Amino acid sequence: MISKSQISFIKSLHQKKFRKEHRLFIVEGFKSIQEFISSKYEIDSIYHLTDVMPKLGKLSQNIKLHEISPDELSKISTLNAPQQLLATIKLPEPQEISFESIQGKFALALDGIQDPGNLGTIIRTADWFGIEYIFCSEDTVEAFNPKVVQASMGSLARVQVIYTDLKSLFSKIKSPVYGALLEGESIYKTNFGKEGILLLGNEGKGISANLMSEIDIPVTIPRFGNAESLNVAISTSIFCSEIRRNC
Amino acid sequence: MISKSQISFIKSLHQKKFRKEHRLFIVEGFKSIQEFISSKYEIDSIYHLTDVMPKLGKLSQNIKLHEISPDELSKISTLNAPQQLLATIKLPEPQEISFESIQGKFALALDGIQDPGNLGTIIRTADWFGIEYIFCSEDTVEAFNPKVVQASMGSLARVQVIYTDLKSLFSKIKSPVYGALLEGESIYKTNFGKEGILLLGNEGKGISANLMSEIDIPVTIPRFGNAESLNVAISTSIFCSEIRRNC
Repeated sequence: MISKSQISFIKSLHQKKFRKEHRLFIVEGFKSIQEFISSKYEIDSIYHLTDVMPKLGKLSQNIKLHEISPDELSKISTLNAPQQLLATIKLPEPQEISFESIQGKFALALDGIQDPGNLGTIIRTADWFGIEYIFCSEDTVEAFNPKVVQASMGSLARVQVIYTDLKSLFSKIKSPVYGALLEGESIYKTNFGKEGILLLGNEGKGISANLMSEIDIPVTIPRFGNAESLNVAISTSIFCSEIRRNC
Repeated sequence: MISKSQISFIKSLHQKKFRKEHRLFIVEGFKSIQEFISSKYEIDSIYHLTDVMPKLGKLSQNIKLHEISPDELSKISTLNAPQQLLATIKLPEPQEISFESIQGKFALALDGIQDPGNLGTIIRTADWFGIEYIFCSEDTVEAFNPKVVQASMGSLARVQVIYTDLKSLFSKIKSPVYGALLEGESIYKTNFGKEGILLLGNEGKGISANLMSEIDIPVTIPRFGNAESLNVAISTSIFCSEIRRNC
């Protein structure tokens, strides 16, 4: 049982403005919540139906637990078909970028990705391929948007998503910037080394004009048929696979 | 201007039952409609705002044109942000599978894909990689579902999507069946030849037990990080890229 004001409070977290104000975001579903519990994130509250809690194992005493009804769950959920539990989790503090920690690795840079499903899928894919850092331009959709969290399938608990000015980032980083473009070196012929940043552009507009000059190596996925373009999460995954194939 | 009954009729096509009954489906947006106009599909009607038509070029006289208001468009559209025009297009007649036409080629087989966005993205990706045929189990989401059409970005006009019993299909086809599994030969070591069928399973349950015995070569995308799985459209795209890399 939760109060009306608690319901309104949780519903307010569906919106970016209130997530920022209250420094909390929402994660739903057993598996995703479990991934956040075993990560460095700090869980604030878990709202759950009867009998769900034992499955989560031993929890920190700081986590507030609330047993709620299916009706209450559907009121606070962001999903059409709510899963048995919902957690509110503390937003991480914005971090200084540690250039040392990304040295010798591959990272992604996303320029203005708008679709939350795309960003979530990119986070999940990066996690599969062991890519730890995703740098996003300030106008990229927010990683704590419930649709991003959902599509990331728990991988957001592990991959670091950092919002920053990409132009200034590129000027400070020495590793090569690979730009995903419709024209460039074929991925089948590119020798991706051990480190670099792969830059991907907005769904409709591609990479911004002001970042084009930062690209060291333009790379492309050869086209064999007639589609005009690939979805950006699809392109990212093909690039990630190519980057890892010689590991 | 269109009548109330026309509005109800078009809205009925948002549902599979009525698409099947009236043998029509909906396509929205300038680019997608253009792709269908220049394909073998037969356009029934185009509902458009003022001034949109000249851009479509010369059209067959059989296409019924209706100028409508933005308010009418938003009533018949399946989108939150309707684009300037909507077409109703004739459903193709179910075809006999021509085994000759798929010989010497790569095709996809989808076992129970449920998410329309995934199917649409797979169709678009197949089109990019020049894959002409997608065989779907009968319980796969319908290709003419508006969300599938939307995500396919016009590629549905070119790629053939055929619903059939996959077990019986595999028994008739001689080319090898590659099964996308979590355990199998690494895609980086597999020599995909010139022909074959790549089988992908349902988002949650994977490939059905009764199809497992049909797999000739189990193949897998190596995991370098911690995500438990990849989205099925993402896996498909990585496999397609590997299939084409030695072309």
